Amino acid sequence: MNRPARIESGPEKGKIDALSPVDALANLLADDLKGVEALILERMQSPVGMIPDIASHLIEAGGKRLRPLITLAAAKACGGGGKAALALATAVEFIHTATLLHDDVVDGSTLRRGKTAANLVWGNQSSVLVGDFLFARSFNLMVEAGSIDILDVLARASSTIAEGEVMQLAAAAKGEASRPGYEAIIEAKTAALFSAAAKVGAMASHASPVEVEAMADYGRHLGLAFQLVDDALDYGGVTDMLGKNIGDDFREGKATLPLIIALESGSPDERAFWEHVLTKRHEPQDLARGLELIKRHRGVVRTLEAAQQHADTARDALSVMASSPFVDALADLADYVVQRAN
Amino acid sequence: MNRPARIESGPEKGKIDALSPVDALANLLADDLKGVEALILERMQSPVGMIPDIASHLIEAGGKRLRPLITLAAAKACGGGGKAALALATAVEFIHTATLLHDDVVDGSTLRRGKTAANLVWGNQSSVLVGDFLFARSFNLMVEAGSIDILDVLARASSTIAEGEVMQLAAAAKGEASRPGYEAIIEAKTAALFSAAAKVGAMASHASPVEVEAMADYGRHLGLAFQLVDDALDYGGVTDMLGKNIGDDFREGKATLPLIIALESGSPDERAFWEHVLTKRHEPQDLARGLELIKRHRGVVRTLEAAQQHADTARDALSVMASSPFVDALADLADYVVQRAN
Repeated sequence: MNRPARIESGPEKGKIDALSPVDALANLLADDLKGVEALILERMQSPVGMIPDIASHLIEAGGKRLRPLITLAAAKACGGGGKAALALATAVEFIHTATLLHDDVVDGSTLRRGKTAANLVWGNQSSVLVGDFLFARSFNLMVEAGSIDILDVLARASSTIAEGEVMQLAAAAKGEASRPGYEAIIEAKTAALFSAAAKVGAMASHASPVEVEAMADYGRHLGLAFQLVDDALDYGGVTDMLGKNIGDDFREGKATLPLIIALESGSPDERAFWEHVLTKRHEPQDLARGLELIKRHRGVVRTLEAAQQHADTARDALSVMASSPFVDALADLADYVVQRAN
Repeated sequence: MNRPARIESGPEKGKIDALSPVDALANLLADDLKGVEALILERMQSPVGMIPDIASHLIEAGGKRLRPLITLAAAKACGGGGKAALALATAVEFIHTATLLHDDVVDGSTLRRGKTAANLVWGNQSSVLVGDFLFARSFNLMVEAGSIDILDVLARASSTIAEGEVMQLAAAAKGEASRPGYEAIIEAKTAALFSAAAKVGAMASHASPVEVEAMADYGRHLGLAFQLVDDALDYGGVTDMLGKNIGDDFREGKATLPLIIALESGSPDERAFWEHVLTKRHEPQDLARGLELIKRHRGVVRTLEAAQQHADTARDALSVMASSPFVDALADLADYVVQRAN
């Protein structure tokens, strides 16, 4: 699953200690976040009604806005903020949303070309086009931020995301399951945007090169931790959480770290099972066996350990920053993305 | 059909008079064009092999590069050229190619979600992702050109293209057929990029505002002429050209100008037929009737007349430019995009 699991805890007034770090960050940046929400609403408008209709499905009010929060916090942590940071935070959210829309594209229809009625030619195409629209709009927003260097960072992140998604597609198609391959995929499809989100926040505040690199590092490792947790949660996390569809990645043939760990540690028989699962059409009962093997080899637990390491590295990256409530909140966020799985 | 009909005439050495204006332009800009071809090849590379594989399918050697030629010629016509123009011409071609890739996405598969084998999840998704990659790379190229104003023009054109495509999708889904609707669609999906291609060429040469607007106008009307001709050719042109699939737009429920003209001029019976064709699932024999009605009301001929008017306006827009072989070649190109249908 590329789509992040929603972080569900809501802010509870009067109980500051009970706030999740995401909510704490949102409170700390309440005014800026309001500005971003307004910009999101404004910039997803179009005289073509279908565009805001579809866009608002994904960019609905109440989303946690994790990536834009990181941009805003990074800007503030570097002593800046203001209009450029708002535009960039919105641009980052639009890139993320475009990615989600394009992730939604389903296939299996090449054989039907020319046979489907025109009014059926909808779902996929509109997802693609509205994604394109938001992606283009994100560049308009970057233009408003006015820095060609910042634009370069986000344009590079955007092509890297596409590379990561293609890598993932190609790996799934070939039935590949390797740790270096997996690491390259999550680096590109997830960490690149988290890293750029933090980096451009710092750049918008005219931060020093050391600070800019610190924020880029922070974002990168936070993104890696985030994706590892997401992939652990796809197998139910450690507590076999309720309310989550277990095994989506398995069904889609995506070899994520829990599976790769089980494969690496498996007996020859077990490896043959994984080989079969990854390259052949598999049956519903295969998932039960897969889950059992992942449990036996502590695939989920060890994935979360890897996530914690990245969270620690993210926190460490902040050590060069002048202390501030924003830096503290970003540090707490790093731990939180892992804790949400426990 | 959004995909432009290929302009087939090839350069014939020693017979300068027989050169099509596209070839004449390519000859005039041979060195720059070579530079663009090299940049295209270089920038579609990726360690992820599937990306250049898929991209090269569409960006194959020998394409006519109409849009990049316009950028290069506009730059030269305004006394400039050089590296920025090459980067922008390449960016324009990448945007165009990304659009083609995203146009290829087929639908009808929502019902299959979760039932398709992972290795079938390919065609659409890879088209989308490689399009995204090229789109992102186009912004990297724009960054190299170094002007935020130029970037703004191409980012706006990109969101306009997406709007145009969504308009077209929505109109087809609702069975709409109106001249203002059609004009808005071709303005957005085709003319916006032609206009931006010419405009950014001028901007890269630091042309005067008058020249920049002249080139933007030229590109816009050239694009409108181009699309009108394309839509006329989809119904066989005036000579019922061989080798072209007739009626693709009809089958896809896209109401283009030839159809709209027949509808506007039609008897109540004929209008009922068009109403049926546009809103209900239609049968193969309906195309024959549609073609007959379009012929009766001179839909193709009158569409080509409208194209010629835009070609004339495009040529007129060039009147403020200092005379040069580049301006002459652009003027000839305007007539040629219409003549290719005769």
